[in-house]
Amino acid sequence: MTVPESVSMPQGQGDSARIVTEMAGKARRAQRELAAMTSAARASALCEAARALRQARDAVLDANRQDVADARSQGLSDALLDRLAIDETRLEAIASAVEQVAALPDPLGTVIDASERPNGLRLSRVRVPIGTIGIIYESRPNVTADAAALCVRSGNAALLRGGSEAARTNRAILAAFQGGLAAGGVPAEAVQLIPTQDRAAVSAMLAAAGLIDMIIPRGGRGLVERVQADARVPVLAHLDGVCHTFVHADADPEMARAIAVNAKLRRPGICGAMETLLIDSGFARAADLVGALIDGGCELRGDGRAQALDPRIGRAHEGDWDTEYLDAVLSVAIVDGIEPALAHIAAHSSGHTDAIVTADEAAAERFLAEVDSAIVMHNASSQFADGGEFGLGAEIGIATGRLHARGPVALEGLTTYKWLVRGNGQARP
Amino acid sequence: MTVPESVSMPQGQGDSARIVTEMAGKARRAQRELAAMTSAARASALCEAARALRQARDAVLDANRQDVADARSQGLSDALLDRLAIDETRLEAIASAVEQVAALPDPLGTVIDASERPNGLRLSRVRVPIGTIGIIYESRPNVTADAAALCVRSGNAALLRGGSEAARTNRAILAAFQGGLAAGGVPAEAVQLIPTQDRAAVSAMLAAAGLIDMIIPRGGRGLVERVQADARVPVLAHLDGVCHTFVHADADPEMARAIAVNAKLRRPGICGAMETLLIDSGFARAADLVGALIDGGCELRGDGRAQALDPRIGRAHEGDWDTEYLDAVLSVAIVDGIEPALAHIAAHSSGHTDAIVTADEAAAERFLAEVDSAIVMHNASSQFADGGEFGLGAEIGIATGRLHARGPVALEGLTTYKWLVRGNGQARP
Repeated sequence: MTVPESVSMPQGQGDSARIVTEMAGKARRAQRELAAMTSAARASALCEAARALRQARDAVLDANRQDVADARSQGLSDALLDRLAIDETRLEAIASAVEQVAALPDPLGTVIDASERPNGLRLSRVRVPIGTIGIIYESRPNVTADAAALCVRSGNAALLRGGSEAARTNRAILAAFQGGLAAGGVPAEAVQLIPTQDRAAVSAMLAAAGLIDMIIPRGGRGLVERVQADARVPVLAHLDGVCHTFVHADADPEMARAIAVNAKLRRPGICGAMETLLIDSGFARAADLVGALIDGGCELRGDGRAQALDPRIGRAHEGDWDTEYLDAVLSVAIVDGIEPALAHIAAHSSGHTDAIVTADEAAAERFLAEVDSAIVMHNASSQFADGGEFGLGAEIGIATGRLHARGPVALEGLTTYKWLVRGNGQARP
Repeated sequence: MTVPESVSMPQGQGDSARIVTEMAGKARRAQRELAAMTSAARASALCEAARALRQARDAVLDANRQDVADARSQGLSDALLDRLAIDETRLEAIASAVEQVAALPDPLGTVIDASERPNGLRLSRVRVPIGTIGIIYESRPNVTADAAALCVRSGNAALLRGGSEAARTNRAILAAFQGGLAAGGVPAEAVQLIPTQDRAAVSAMLAAAGLIDMIIPRGGRGLVERVQADARVPVLAHLDGVCHTFVHADADPEMARAIAVNAKLRRPGICGAMETLLIDSGFARAADLVGALIDGGCELRGDGRAQALDPRIGRAHEGDWDTEYLDAVLSVAIVDGIEPALAHIAAHSSGHTDAIVTADEAAAERFLAEVDSAIVMHNASSQFADGGEFGLGAEIGIATGRLHARGPVALEGLTTYKWLVRGNGQARP
């Protein structure tokens, strides 16, 4: 399979708007066809897409080698190069993830609730696709296939805008994916790639109210903040993960140690990693707890009382309590019971995931009730904040906003509902 | 009771931002207290608010007389004066509506779904308040109490911004309402009125991302469009209601006539009123159908084939197919079966409410499945598009967007959810 050269794009703002408008129009028409298909047909087209990805192995790996070579010559960091690179194993993982999405239960048509009115009208709310989803993402080319698969499974069209450093790889993946979809009877325009040469296209996507129904930014804070600031289209976004773990006076010391070490150090760079540890002054084994973290390779920054626990603990500065380190660094504070713990979390949590460790059920239930975050945990590591771990099968992201969907977002979050009203001639009095 | 004079406000943009920030901060603190109260306590505080509204009768009616006198001297239309005016009957209706909201089932704490993972983690999603809701509305002062009651019932704080022509009335209603809340143990800052003298305050509200969690504009198209264009806060809005009724070849003629006349003429000015009638060319009694509408006082604008049905039908112009008349005017087109009817609706519907009249169940189910509007009806008048008629008890509005909530929005639409995760020491492998 050859990678199609993407059309060379004029650079003006008006042209970008025109291009996005045209692509969104095609997406809308394709989405209507997609939504009218059976669930089995959508799933089968995704299996064709997975097959096509495997068949396109040489084209994808070749395109990726060129992207990686260019990126290296432009001095991209090793971490970014690693995100960008695709080998046979990774391509197989991408194809296999598409098959897993194909196998997920179809959210469309699910009846959310139903009722019958005294006048005989029968009402129900059923899940339907949102429509056209714009996805704006950075380096990792696996997002191209992941996001496209989740959108197609849930009956949505996808307009994908990946990073320019992955442009060839994304085009190769998308060409294979579209070929598979078409073989499965899904119009290829259901998933389209917005050309990266056109730098104004992102602005045109963000302005495309009525053409694009939702935008999901996936990437660093800079990207997400720009999308949130500029979008005229509703945005489903993940911002910060300043996650807290509160070790209550009645926590089992061994459980507290195991959870804290896992929450911080299993993978310090994921959004569900603990960033602040709050230790109840009534918890007797605080020195052991911080010692285990330090011995595990973590840098601790404490308030005065925390520093007194271990001479290796540095001084926390004001901004530290609001910092998502995404690294083996942790803020630690001593609090006198659950009340100040709740107050600290209310003041500093980013609303992602916060956890309590305690054997006191009443304290746990109070914490679960009063902490106003997307995910609130009792006696578990915050690293479980993940769509796969939650049994959703896959996730398009974790939402830290409050509307539409919160926490891990998978197929259900890519749907909305409509009201069906069945009557037998009712006129309103 | 005296109506408090609202503090005189400095006019600068920076001052408006400061004022909105301060009020939102108080709202946030009050909302946390409100959310921690029991459902019974919130309901009881609303009953106190209803009582206080009745007790404040003289103050409210006096304030309203002044507002109406000013509005009349400024030349407001009779229709707007009627919306603004409050008499004893209307005040009683306002108080009684607050009691009805108090009696609605509490959405908070409802478990949406729950599961247990193989590792023993127990997950559930429970409904929680959204937080602080900004409501920006025009003339009708009953919105002040209605919106405040819906927000309090669902555990949200409300920042209300009414029209300047109703400023005294809104202040009198809010003062009574706050007094009642406080008597019931709810902090008065849970509902606040943004001063109307400060014209930049609306812009400050729209910009208050992170301080206000959702904005609901209630008013004419100009207001809603401005809010949608400028808001950095998520918006739940009602835009157009270009509602269609398709009379299929197999419609019962008498049912079709009764539904069409009701859908257009019961109250032509509501958003659920039919604006376009599509008649299947196979429907034998089309002339009777249009005749009944014309005889009922409706002006019809048709395509060429519709005009051939009755000499009293005028010529529809291109824009008519996208026009929400909100008046006794109707566009009429003849279509050859369900396929072109669906295509017309896909091209021209505003996504509010569309209906089919037919005795053919297969045609009805196809219409229900393929029309992508918030509400799709079979054999019923589109005038039923209303939260009360849907059994929701009350509505804060009808949403024509696609995310978060769609169609009539009541208490559930004022909630979001959080994930609760209960473990017994799980660390993620």
